[in-house]
Amino acid sequence: MNQVLAAESVAPAANGRIQVTEVGMRDGLQIESRLIPAEQKIDLLNDMIASGISHIEVTSFVSPKAVPQLADAEQVIGGIRRREDTYLMALVPNLRAAERAANTSVDGGVLLCSASETHNRKNLNRGIDESIAAFGEVAACLRAAGIEPLGGLAVVFGCPFEGDVPVRDVLRLAQSYADLGIHHVTLGDTTGMATPVNVRNVIRTLRGELPDIDITLHLHNTRGVGLANVLVGLEEGVRRFDASVGGLGGCPFAAGATGNICTEDLVYLLQESGYETGIDLDKAIAVAHKMERLLEKPLAGQVMRAGPRLALHAADAVRTAAG
Amino acid sequence: MNQVLAAESVAPAANGRIQVTEVGMRDGLQIESRLIPAEQKIDLLNDMIASGISHIEVTSFVSPKAVPQLADAEQVIGGIRRREDTYLMALVPNLRAAERAANTSVDGGVLLCSASETHNRKNLNRGIDESIAAFGEVAACLRAAGIEPLGGLAVVFGCPFEGDVPVRDVLRLAQSYADLGIHHVTLGDTTGMATPVNVRNVIRTLRGELPDIDITLHLHNTRGVGLANVLVGLEEGVRRFDASVGGLGGCPFAAGATGNICTEDLVYLLQESGYETGIDLDKAIAVAHKMERLLEKPLAGQVMRAGPRLALHAADAVRTAAG
Repeated sequence: MNQVLAAESVAPAANGRIQVTEVGMRDGLQIESRLIPAEQKIDLLNDMIASGISHIEVTSFVSPKAVPQLADAEQVIGGIRRREDTYLMALVPNLRAAERAANTSVDGGVLLCSASETHNRKNLNRGIDESIAAFGEVAACLRAAGIEPLGGLAVVFGCPFEGDVPVRDVLRLAQSYADLGIHHVTLGDTTGMATPVNVRNVIRTLRGELPDIDITLHLHNTRGVGLANVLVGLEEGVRRFDASVGGLGGCPFAAGATGNICTEDLVYLLQESGYETGIDLDKAIAVAHKMERLLEKPLAGQVMRAGPRLALHAADAVRTAAG
Repeated sequence: MNQVLAAESVAPAANGRIQVTEVGMRDGLQIESRLIPAEQKIDLLNDMIASGISHIEVTSFVSPKAVPQLADAEQVIGGIRRREDTYLMALVPNLRAAERAANTSVDGGVLLCSASETHNRKNLNRGIDESIAAFGEVAACLRAAGIEPLGGLAVVFGCPFEGDVPVRDVLRLAQSYADLGIHHVTLGDTTGMATPVNVRNVIRTLRGELPDIDITLHLHNTRGVGLANVLVGLEEGVRRFDASVGGLGGCPFAAGATGNICTEDLVYLLQESGYETGIDLDKAIAVAHKMERLLEKPLAGQVMRAGPRLALHAADAVRTAAG
C-alpha cells in the first residue's frame, strides 16, 4: 500500500487527460467459470501495467465460495510488479473484506451498495440502510491501514429487478459517502441499462447537489451503447471511466450478452477524440489477445480484431465487393 | 417503382423522427459465403417491413460472378410485399446496373464512388474521374424509369489503402452529385474508420459548402465506436442512418470484425434518446433472430441478446456476483 501514490493518483485528471481503470480482472473474470491460476493473472496484470494502465481494480474480497475465481485475491495483489503511477483497487463490500484488504498493498478499497433495494439484497444480502450503516466502519478500517476508501454504486442507471432507479436514491447514497469524506464515487451501470438520457440526468443531478463529487463512469456494453454513453460522459465533464480488457465479462441475465465496455475500444475512442490516456493501444491489444488465448474463447473487443484505424492494407491484398 | 412514394419518403424527416435504412440484405449478405435462397430473403424483407422499417437497401445490381449472393436481385425485389410507406433501394454502381434497376420496382438507385482513388479502382475497377463522368448517364437512365437517383460515397472517413481521406475529395464528389440535382448523399464509413472528430468535421464542411445537402450516415462498427458516431451525427443534425439487421456483415480486411452498425441496437439507442423511428423493437429483434437461425451463426447485435432495457427479471431468478 502506497499512501503517497494513492493520494496523488486519484487527484482530478489534467484537462484532456482521461483515467481509464481496468476492471476486467475483477468484473470480467468473476463471471468466467474457467479458473485462471494466480500466476497467469499476475502475468496479465504486469502486462497491463507495462501497457500504461495505471489504475486497476485487481480483485474483490468476497467469499471464495461465492466467487471461486477471486479466491486468490491476496496472492494476486502480492505478485504485481508496480510502476511509479500504479494504483491498485479492490472491491471491499463489507468489514470482513476491509480487514482482508488491510493486509494487502492495495491503494484503494471500493465500498459497494446498489441503488435499488432488491439488487442490494440479491448482491450483498442486506438492505440499503444496512449497507449505509456499515460504510463508516468499513471506511475506518481501510483508512487505519492507509487505504483510500472509494464509493461504489451498482445499478445506478437501472435495475434488472426494479427497472428505472430514481435519481434521489443515487443521490442519497452519494451523500452517505460524502458524509464520510468519500467524494470519489463510481456510478455502476451493472447490467447495461444506461442510456444517453439517464447518464446525463444522473451526472447533472449529482453535480448540482454535490459539487465536490468526483465521478467515475462504470459502463457496460450489454445493449451496444456503452461507448455512446462514454461520449455523453465526456460531454458532461467526466474524466474517469472503467473498462475491461477485450470486453471480458458478461451479464448474468442474458447468455451471450457482453459485459463492461472494452478497454482497447475505449482507449481507441479517446485517443481518436483527442484525449490522452497514457496507454499504448498496441500493447493493450496484445494483452487482450493474451487473455483470449488463456480463456480459449473469443472476446467482445472490436479494435483487437480490426486493429488501429491507420493500420493500412496493400492495395493488391483484397478484392472488395462494394461500398 | 412508385414515384409518388419515392418523392415523399426521402423528404426531410420531421423533427424528432429518424429514418433508419436497413442495409443488411445488401451490405451484410454480400460478405456471407452461405447463399440464402431468394424466398428466404423475401420472407426476411417482408418481416422487416412488418416491423416498421420503411427504407430498405434490398440488393446491389452487380455481376453475379463478383457477388453470387446478390445474383437474385430482380427476383427478390419482385417478391417483396410493400406497405404504403415502403421505399426500396438498390446499389447501382454503373450504367449496366441502372438498366437492370429500370426493369424493377425499386424506388431509389444508389450511385457509388469511393472518396479515395485506390479504393474506387479496387471496388469499381475505375478511377474517380471516370466514375464522376458516368454519374450523368446512370442518373438519366434511372430517372427515365421513374427511379430516384441517390448519391453514395464510400470510404468517406478513411480508406484502408490510403488512410485519411481529405474532406475536399469528399466535397468534390458531393458537388458532382449536386450538379446533377442529387442532393441526397450517403456518407459511407466502409471499413469502420469514422471517429467522432472526422464525422463532425466532414458533416460541417459539407453543410457549409453545400447547404442543400441531405446526409445519410452509413456507419460501421468495425472498431466498436459506431453508435458513438451516431450520437455525433445526431448532434450535428443528421436524421438518416443506415444499419444492418443483427449487425450482419463483416469487414474484408479483418477476420471476425463486425460490419455495419446493428439495426436493433441503433433503434434502441434512438428510442431511448427520445427519437421516433416508427420501428417496433421487439419485431426487429425477432427478424435478427430469424436471420441468425438462417445463417446458423451468432450475429453481432447486442440488444437481440440482452433484450430491451426494461424487460425485468424476477428477483429469485439469478444470484448476482458483485457490482
